[in-house]
Amino acid sequence: MDFSAVNTVWVLVGAALVFFMQAGFCILESGLTRAKNAGNIIMKNLMDFCIGTPIFWIIGFGIMFGSSSAIFGGIDLFTRGDYSAVTPDGVPFYAFFIFQTVFCATAATIVSGAMAERTDFKAYCIYSAIISLIVYPVSGHWIWGGGWLSELGFHDFAGSCAVHMVGGMAALIGAAVLGPRIGKYDKNGKPRAILGHNLTMAALGVFILWFCWFGFNGGSTVAMEGLTNAADGSEMTMGALAGSVFSTTNMAAAVATVTTMLFTWIRYKKPDVSMSLNGTLAGLVIVTASTDCIDMYGAAIEGIIAGIAVVLVIEFIDKVCKVDDPVGAVGVHFANGLLGTICVGLFSTGQNGVGAGLFYGGGFKQLGIQLLGVVTVCAWVGVTMIIVFEVLKHTIGLRVPADIEIKGLDYAEHGLASAYSGFEFAANDLTIASDDEIEVFGSEKMENAVPAVVKTSPEKENKITKVEILAKQSKFEKLKKAMNDIGVTGMTVTQVLGCGTQKGAPEYYRGVEVDMQLLPKIQVEMVVSKVPVADVIDAARKALYTGHIGDGKIFVYDVEDVVKVRTGETGYDALQGADD
Amino acid sequence: MDFSAVNTVWVLVGAALVFFMQAGFCILESGLTRAKNAGNIIMKNLMDFCIGTPIFWIIGFGIMFGSSSAIFGGIDLFTRGDYSAVTPDGVPFYAFFIFQTVFCATAATIVSGAMAERTDFKAYCIYSAIISLIVYPVSGHWIWGGGWLSELGFHDFAGSCAVHMVGGMAALIGAAVLGPRIGKYDKNGKPRAILGHNLTMAALGVFILWFCWFGFNGGSTVAMEGLTNAADGSEMTMGALAGSVFSTTNMAAAVATVTTMLFTWIRYKKPDVSMSLNGTLAGLVIVTASTDCIDMYGAAIEGIIAGIAVVLVIEFIDKVCKVDDPVGAVGVHFANGLLGTICVGLFSTGQNGVGAGLFYGGGFKQLGIQLLGVVTVCAWVGVTMIIVFEVLKHTIGLRVPADIEIKGLDYAEHGLASAYSGFEFAANDLTIASDDEIEVFGSEKMENAVPAVVKTSPEKENKITKVEILAKQSKFEKLKKAMNDIGVTGMTVTQVLGCGTQKGAPEYYRGVEVDMQLLPKIQVEMVVSKVPVADVIDAARKALYTGHIGDGKIFVYDVEDVVKVRTGETGYDALQGADD
Amino acid sequence: MDFSAVNTVWVLVGAALVFFMQAGFCILESGLTRAKNAGNIIMKNLMDFCIGTPIFWIIGFGIMFGSSSAIFGGIDLFTRGDYSAVTPDGVPFYAFFIFQTVFCATAATIVSGAMAERTDFKAYCIYSAIISLIVYPVSGHWIWGGGWLSELGFHDFAGSCAVHMVGGMAALIGAAVLGPRIGKYDKNGKPRAILGHNLTMAALGVFILWFCWFGFNGGSTVAMEGLTNAADGSEMTMGALAGSVFSTTNMAAAVATVTTMLFTWIRYKKPDVSMSLNGTLAGLVIVTASTDCIDMYGAAIEGIIAGIAVVLVIEFIDKVCKVDDPVGAVGVHFANGLLGTICVGLFSTGQNGVGAGLFYGGGFKQLGIQLLGVVTVCAWVGVTMIIVFEVLKHTIGLRVPADIEIKGLDYAEHGLASAYSGFEFAANDLTIASDDEIEVFGSEKMENAVPAVVKTSPEKENKITKVEILAKQSKFEKLKKAMNDIGVTGMTVTQVLGCGTQKGAPEYYRGVEVDMQLLPKIQVEMVVSKVPVADVIDAARKALYTGHIGDGKIFVYDVEDVVKVRTGETGYDALQGADD
Repeated sequence: MDFSAVNTVWVLVGAALVFFMQAGFCILESGLTRAKNAGNIIMKNLMDFCIGTPIFWIIGFGIMFGSSSAIFGGIDLFTRGDYSAVTPDGVPFYAFFIFQTVFCATAATIVSGAMAERTDFKAYCIYSAIISLIVYPVSGHWIWGGGWLSELGFHDFAGSCAVHMVGGMAALIGAAVLGPRIGKYDKNGKPRAILGHNLTMAALGVFILWFCWFGFNGGSTVAMEGLTNAADGSEMTMGALAGSVFSTTNMAAAVATVTTMLFTWIRYKKPDVSMSLNGTLAGLVIVTASTDCIDMYGAAIEGIIAGIAVVLVIEFIDKVCKVDDPVGAVGVHFANGLLGTICVGLFSTGQNGVGAGLFYGGGFKQLGIQLLGVVTVCAWVGVTMIIVFEVLKHTIGLRVPADIEIKGLDYAEHGLASAYSGFEFAANDLTIASDDEIEVFGSEKMENAVPAVVKTSPEKENKITKVEILAKQSKFEKLKKAMNDIGVTGMTVTQVLGCGTQKGAPEYYRGVEVDMQLLPKIQVEMVVSKVPVADVIDAARKALYTGHIGDGKIFVYDVEDVVKVRTGETGYDALQGADD
Repeated sequence: MDFSAVNTVWVLVGAALVFFMQAGFCILESGLTRAKNAGNIIMKNLMDFCIGTPIFWIIGFGIMFGSSSAIFGGIDLFTRGDYSAVTPDGVPFYAFFIFQTVFCATAATIVSGAMAERTDFKAYCIYSAIISLIVYPVSGHWIWGGGWLSELGFHDFAGSCAVHMVGGMAALIGAAVLGPRIGKYDKNGKPRAILGHNLTMAALGVFILWFCWFGFNGGSTVAMEGLTNAADGSEMTMGALAGSVFSTTNMAAAVATVTTMLFTWIRYKKPDVSMSLNGTLAGLVIVTASTDCIDMYGAAIEGIIAGIAVVLVIEFIDKVCKVDDPVGAVGVHFANGLLGTICVGLFSTGQNGVGAGLFYGGGFKQLGIQLLGVVTVCAWVGVTMIIVFEVLKHTIGLRVPADIEIKGLDYAEHGLASAYSGFEFAANDLTIASDDEIEVFGSEKMENAVPAVVKTSPEKENKITKVEILAKQSKFEKLKKAMNDIGVTGMTVTQVLGCGTQKGAPEYYRGVEVDMQLLPKIQVEMVVSKVPVADVIDAARKALYTGHIGDGKIFVYDVEDVVKVRTGETGYDALQGADD
Repeated sequence: MDFSAVNTVWVLVGAALVFFMQAGFCILESGLTRAKNAGNIIMKNLMDFCIGTPIFWIIGFGIMFGSSSAIFGGIDLFTRGDYSAVTPDGVPFYAFFIFQTVFCATAATIVSGAMAERTDFKAYCIYSAIISLIVYPVSGHWIWGGGWLSELGFHDFAGSCAVHMVGGMAALIGAAVLGPRIGKYDKNGKPRAILGHNLTMAALGVFILWFCWFGFNGGSTVAMEGLTNAADGSEMTMGALAGSVFSTTNMAAAVATVTTMLFTWIRYKKPDVSMSLNGTLAGLVIVTASTDCIDMYGAAIEGIIAGIAVVLVIEFIDKVCKVDDPVGAVGVHFANGLLGTICVGLFSTGQNGVGAGLFYGGGFKQLGIQLLGVVTVCAWVGVTMIIVFEVLKHTIGLRVPADIEIKGLDYAEHGLASAYSGFEFAANDLTIASDDEIEVFGSEKMENAVPAVVKTSPEKENKITKVEILAKQSKFEKLKKAMNDIGVTGMTVTQVLGCGTQKGAPEYYRGVEVDMQLLPKIQVEMVVSKVPVADVIDAARKALYTGHIGDGKIFVYDVEDVVKVRTGETGYDALQGADD
């Protein structure tokens, strides 16, 4: 076909939509993780696209679409070769080029979610570049670039395998090599929930991704003019194919969401919000390989499979494998990318030139090819990414130090005091880290420190005393444990701002030094009668002591009386028994 | 016409944009309501689309586009029939199918805003399904499916009536049957403002909706090739019609926004932000029926009508009808959907095959048909939705229990501690509920509870004492009233975290139990001299007592002195008179 | 050419995307400024588009596209003339009209960011209208409307000059005339960082803008059918041109982002998040003039230029010019709009009918024309906007009063208590304003006020006393200074809610009065021993006194003892020396 204006419009609109997926991934990942790392996640999502774009132009595109062999496209620096053999009918080269560029970036961005909240920024930039440089282009060549899998008849319409399984596999390996976030597992290996900081943003991210998926899958027809074959062998316009792609993609996503909602309702007693959002994405990923060759029934069944699989795989990864994937990228992209690729061999009706699937009278042939593709692509990505991550781990380091991780990557990696300046944050986050893990904060021995001799009022019987401790937020967990150990259970924690001569290290925001005179502190209050005040002070000092300025102060006050509302007990008695 | 690639591109791009409206509605509704219900609103918006999609495929589409009668399309399970008679020229069936699916979901999603923050999730899923199953398809058949209204010449280009008035009517009935949120009206029935938690999100939602409206209205030409008639009877390309649709849609929205801004500036002395956002949507809704058959002057006048009507109707619904519509869905969709449908009969120039309107020399004919359509569609939706909501109300229940509503639907319906984990929330929300309403919290009699005998220092003249009460946040309003009743007016409230052995019920986030050792509490401090401490403690106990663990504690401290800054008074005197 | 359906689809999709830029600008500006002004920023972004739309229809379009002279298009009220001479081939008039309308609004919206957080809303509406009415249309006529610059061969493909430089120049003048935000510069003129309140939103804004830029630049081909010339003089389809536009636009943005990230990494030691976001936009702006006539190498080099220029110009404007541009609009739009216009003369390959640039063998001719255009457009915008802003400044006033600015424009200009109702905000913001500037708060002399005589316990040696001050948040900085002056350095600040009989002025939200019984206050605690309590009270009263209700209270408590954790010192000693 000569140049087709309609096909070009279609491909370019698709490219713009696929680009916009970056926005969806960015805010989805940001929303499902903690506020202290939001700036870092933004940067990583921005950088994988911005580094991937020139890398793919300089070398990746040639590896993927060159024709030197069935295994490897070729080296064509700055993409100056002739690709008319692989460019779709009627579509100009650069329209095809931008469409492929935005696909490549999608694979790279999937990884960032699974490795969020603990990966070193430098290491991230490097492995992200390597994915766009070689990992994605090689398997992409096999599948879409005229390589051996496409020769065999392997079918992956818009990238369940080439994009999502590849990205999800890299994510799985990355998260495993990296290890879990501090506090994710307790001493017995039981996982703890670390809540995302903005589910509205996460939901918007999912809606953006769904919207863009119409470009991702729809645009992958790369034509609106021209003909293909229907399931019965008759002619079918490319427009009819595109309409079918839209309808099946939408159906799989909708059914998967409802399935996940119902499945979590049964399993956790309540319909889980963030898991349902993952369910939507699972439905979109699973249908992507087969959306051009299935009917509406197939799409609905794939949605049901995805909606259940995503929950089970996320739980399996989290609870059995003990791999910490904060956003569920492995369950969404790897598992459903893999299942979606296989589904071609099960549900294909035989339209658009694809072999019919097992359930549509095609026997095992297409299914066998799909399985072969899944295995070999997993092997390729698995081997290369293990090498990449292990080399990084043992050279420049893949993970930030523990104190940076606890403080948040925004501050330590980007000098950003907060991505949400002005908002107040709760101390709840402090309970995340377990006692052992909290030891990462340097703490010097205080044996040779001067002991404190506290003066209290002349001893009264059952005297009641309030002890107020002003300390760094990061010391809370240790302080709480120390208090519990000596028998103090009831405490009240308030977020305060400490204002003094002490200053934080200078940080820059847009080139200007940030002035931080008010440092966030916690004020922990406890009222004691049975436990001697001296013991409280001693234990608190041991918990808080580092020998550096900023260790905090302890104040002692007299309390006239205390009443327990429930029982009416006063004084000493009010402070005993179950906590009110 | 045979297959048209351009028409298909146009319809599919339109479908993707109309789908994306779901994102706009989701974050608009979430932004205009409270943070404690954000997760629930996300789920509802997600579910109406995800449930509606398969329902519309399984049965709704057949009811809407079948040709069995002028009243009812037909039953065609899984949409397997032949719809070539209603499919637009040159557009493949599934392109038309997906376009109609996303329209259906828009009608359903409108309802969720008006019924936000108090509707049971199960009931929501059911009535949302019924709208997609039967309510929308039947009136849709009359208007767009070849039914009796379309036969008469009723014109509703892109759905002011079929989508927005239908959704808005259901919203009105739903909100009325459901009753207002706790605290929305005081004892005298005066409405109180319940502020939305994120206006930036709401604004983004409006911009997304406006953007998508270009697909909603523009895509409704369902053709770019082909001809229609201009106002003077000459031929006009479908492209010229699409350009005109874009321009008039945009003009109505812009003028409506400016009108609302100015109208609220006059009425409330200041230009109201969230009302102006409603104004934008009002302009978009009103122009939707007539955007293909009006000129730019008509669009501007419709914008002025919408900008004023939305304010008056929202106030009327809120203040006179006392129906609580948190996001203004009735004022936006019902009122302007209705007005927009009538505007066809007023401003139509006679182009695109529509009869000319009253002000364009067409007399009363088109206007009469439009009025007939409005009345009958209102009757259909009104009757069916009253039945649906009343049946739900008296069977599984339409509304969540009061304590769940006050605690927030995220926690109770979805086990989600917060959609904004880590952020600290103000206690301001507590002042919403009036004293009667707060009684919903179970409170046992404390007659047989042990009275508290408080010990204070040896009596000094005008002794000053600080009483510090640690209690549950939900008890604040009752405590405040109790204190006011005994003459204590000045109080300081601090958000604190209570840390003790007491634990909340286990909740799950993504399948993992959520660890909540720090429970949010309030610390209320008051310094008294005139009012006896024993009275304060007695009144506080009565307000806080439930007999369960967690009722709180009361601490009593000696105060050396107090100074009122303004007057320089100290001691007893500083605590009297106007509050500082 | 007769009507082209494909070209029309292309232009209309482009128009929708360019409209959606409003969403991107809105949340980008909102995210990079403070939460207290979020509602105001939303309103301004909404209004520039909504006011600009009718204004451009009523008069602006005629000025831009009329043909009366080379300098000025013509007066054509309500755009009723014949514009077939300027309407692109095959595109209906109203498709072209809406495309131009959304471009115009983009220029106007750029200004709002630079003037954020201090501009009077009324003045904003007026100058925004003037930009759409006359400023943008006149230079637009020169460049795109058949005026003298276009006659000369000046090339600005999609608006680096016509839109971005014009908007950025107006922004620069506006920000300069307006003056910096309170607290932006200290007494010595050193700039301080004022952090934005939501970087995730800002990032989403940037992603939206990038997405929409594919419509802004891509749609500016205004054709998909038809031919143009390639660099070597051969024929090239418009589709190939559009593909090239997509690819070069994307490349420039990606390379600019990476460049800014690396440049800030070197310069500030850490990769700066918000500056990198500016880098992305800089790359998009710079390439906009030349995206149709450069190759991929040119795009990459322009990206490098933009990525460095944006950092240097933002620093120059901030540190040297001392013009306060909260979002970096001048650095992004003015600087890169200017550079991008010049780049046509450097990197043009000669394709699409543009003269070849200096580095592509075209000599200085095209470069000279580009420079002439830059100078004359700057002169036009500079002169008119100085007049506009100065007239506004000296008539209705351009800037809000200082107390409104400190309190936030949401509350004072729109009666909006908070755009984020329910969220708690930190007092950190209070440290922004310097001591002089804080004097804007009216403060009466307290000479004739009654002095306070405070009663404390019988004098003990080294008695330790806690002074607790309850005051308005806005008084914090003054109070802190007063305390420092008398030797009190350590203070703890807590956000509390004061509950009393005192009420704020009534405000309306959506027409309903807002109930505010709990007013935000700060509670400042200090424990003193060396400094006499009477001095503390005296100094605090002086700092807080205004003579009006609400000046606050001071409480005095006895402290039994205090321990400094680090040293173990107790009592008097624990309160001396370096702050803990």
